[in-house]
Amino acid sequence: MNIKEATKKMKQDSSRMAALSLEERNRALEAVTRALQKNRERIFAANREDMDAAKASGVPESVMKRLKFDEHKLEDVLAGIEGLIGLPDPIGKVQLARELDEGLKLYRVSCPIGVIGIIFEARPDALVQISSLCIKSGNCAVLKGGKETARTNRVLFETIYQAALQAGAPEGCMLQAEQHNEIDELLSCHGSVDLLIPRGSNQFVQYIMNNTKIPVMGHADGICHIYVDQDADLSKAVPVIVDAKTQYTAACNAAETLLVNRACAAEMLPVIAAALKDAGVKIRGTREAAELIRPVAECEVMEEEEFHTEYLDMVISVKLVEDVQEAIAHINQYGSHHTDSILTENRETAELFMQLVDSAGVYQNCSTRFADGFRYGFGAEVGISTGKIHARGPVGLEGLVTYKYRLFGQGHIVGDYASGKKQFHFKELQ
Amino acid sequence: MNIKEATKKMKQDSSRMAALSLEERNRALEAVTRALQKNRERIFAANREDMDAAKASGVPESVMKRLKFDEHKLEDVLAGIEGLIGLPDPIGKVQLARELDEGLKLYRVSCPIGVIGIIFEARPDALVQISSLCIKSGNCAVLKGGKETARTNRVLFETIYQAALQAGAPEGCMLQAEQHNEIDELLSCHGSVDLLIPRGSNQFVQYIMNNTKIPVMGHADGICHIYVDQDADLSKAVPVIVDAKTQYTAACNAAETLLVNRACAAEMLPVIAAALKDAGVKIRGTREAAELIRPVAECEVMEEEEFHTEYLDMVISVKLVEDVQEAIAHINQYGSHHTDSILTENRETAELFMQLVDSAGVYQNCSTRFADGFRYGFGAEVGISTGKIHARGPVGLEGLVTYKYRLFGQGHIVGDYASGKKQFHFKELQ
Repeated sequence: MNIKEATKKMKQDSSRMAALSLEERNRALEAVTRALQKNRERIFAANREDMDAAKASGVPESVMKRLKFDEHKLEDVLAGIEGLIGLPDPIGKVQLARELDEGLKLYRVSCPIGVIGIIFEARPDALVQISSLCIKSGNCAVLKGGKETARTNRVLFETIYQAALQAGAPEGCMLQAEQHNEIDELLSCHGSVDLLIPRGSNQFVQYIMNNTKIPVMGHADGICHIYVDQDADLSKAVPVIVDAKTQYTAACNAAETLLVNRACAAEMLPVIAAALKDAGVKIRGTREAAELIRPVAECEVMEEEEFHTEYLDMVISVKLVEDVQEAIAHINQYGSHHTDSILTENRETAELFMQLVDSAGVYQNCSTRFADGFRYGFGAEVGISTGKIHARGPVGLEGLVTYKYRLFGQGHIVGDYASGKKQFHFKELQ
Repeated sequence: MNIKEATKKMKQDSSRMAALSLEERNRALEAVTRALQKNRERIFAANREDMDAAKASGVPESVMKRLKFDEHKLEDVLAGIEGLIGLPDPIGKVQLARELDEGLKLYRVSCPIGVIGIIFEARPDALVQISSLCIKSGNCAVLKGGKETARTNRVLFETIYQAALQAGAPEGCMLQAEQHNEIDELLSCHGSVDLLIPRGSNQFVQYIMNNTKIPVMGHADGICHIYVDQDADLSKAVPVIVDAKTQYTAACNAAETLLVNRACAAEMLPVIAAALKDAGVKIRGTREAAELIRPVAECEVMEEEEFHTEYLDMVISVKLVEDVQEAIAHINQYGSHHTDSILTENRETAELFMQLVDSAGVYQNCSTRFADGFRYGFGAEVGISTGKIHARGPVGLEGLVTYKYRLFGQGHIVGDYASGKKQFHFKELQ
């Protein structure tokens, strides 16, 4: 069966998946936990094969870490599922209850989205996380993971899928796509697939966004900024900047650009630059910034247009600005509406920054690296969205549900209200 | 200035628009109210010109009603703005407040989407409604109305725009597009325009959805169903069906298809068909349905594929089904996920229908015509969405806002949590 036919079948099954009770969904998650433990040796063996093949083909050490699925990663995902089981039901929540008129009652109730396609990087733990989030939220999931961990993914998928089926989930609850060409097929499945969540490189996500009619949730770029205000506390600024840049450079929430207020640049920038240099960061900046940095560290002069760059590496762009307004304007123009932080002790300046910066996350005195579903206390995340429609920022269970309006009448007709015979009275129900 | 440049400017101004206080936005709405009253004669005169031109060019009487903007319509929109002023602020709402760790506080706060493009049919009252919803929610609006009321729209737009400016809104708060070719220009403004809301014909909305990278909220089809269950109360069924079909046939929430349970069809269908005939409705149906209908009314036999038809006219499709499951399957396959109603006195059957029908509105014992922002008590609506992402069903103020995460730290870095030096404690704040 090809992807098109398979997702049509999933669409049909999606209403049965949506109708599973919280108990049934939690039971399925418990079955998944047990199955993963039972199949641990098969999973680890498959992962060792993937790791060996990746090493042989010259995959760099930093990426190898992501491919790995060992005892430690298994414990992490099991703890994650445990946490998920404990979370309240995201579906069936009554968001609005209103009597429109005598005997005519309106309820807005959360429900699953339906069929969700998730395309993710070569990280086996992501497959477990995503599929368990979909089970908890009553959604059917099409999963396409990175090819470097194809063997691990196959065993993990089979383990989870069989456990879910045995616990009562419908046949179409999950589907694994394994071939790269199946991605294009998936992109054409509007009508069956309700939402796509792509994760991966900027270019890849952009490709998905440009080649499908299915709504896409995610982010292409992660060009995060840190603005050092004239009222910044240097003792906080240095560790925050070093953390935001170096703690995990490959992450979308790592800082790429440092903006420094001219009033404090001569005092603070050399100290910051020295710390970045010590941490192994290559510094690039405007001519003006370079003049202040060069006494303590090398600084390559860069052009204005290059401030659009997402390095995802130990490199940072530096620019001086006149005031918070110029910093805000720079961020809104060159940023990616992901996460931006202001370092200042001044409440008003921070408020202005947080009000006017048009990003999913606006921070004061902390590292941009906090932009993450786990760190926000969501239990898990399916991805981070820089769009403004539906979910924004780190997306947990909430981003996987929509709602429907249920209206209960007793033969009510609109004609009676149009003619003035009856009037709505709009009473909120408890 | 062309649309592309104008929307870039609006994007820049959108953060100032978002920063207006509730008081400032309400003051702007009050100014709009006064300006509309002051300019009433100019507005009516422009509308008379539009009406004369429309009449001369042979616009049908049913459409002429929509074009009209007279004393009565003015009173309606003024009452609408008055209601809007009284509504609570949709922006600045704290949706989540959580201490992640000592001194590290996360808030999720609602905020405007930014720049919204709205393309709507020739209905001058829609221009007033939409622009006032955008002012209340702090959004900048690009407005393109139907050409048949171009003169009325121009006077209304200038009146509202000047009033908003004088009340302190930024220059880029509103823009009127008047030429049809400007629609295509608007569709290419991703990066400046955050959301498009098209209203109008199925074909037109489909065109918009297929030709832009900007997220689109709205609906193309409105193929609404009524299912008459074997446990239906015929005395309720007849008026509900007649209302849903005939009360306003041009509306997207008018019923297009009637499904009848075989167990009660012989008893109920002839009565329903006779009532539809009396109301002037042309009936089409499957061969099986036609046999039951023909003793009381004409019935054209139709093919299965024709159940995809949205008539928007005094015509209805009729089919018999074996049970509620077959009704649900038909609706999910042929419907448009808009609004569907079951007529039954059986709670369990209704629950099953409401659970499994994949539509924005699922009703029991009432007319599909209730699917409307005003009737839901939202004060006003910008449109009805059949998508599942962001807003679904009738969309009021809530659909015009998103949120951002504000995180306040005191020099917090992720490194401390990754190393285990610190732990998150996730305390909900009041």
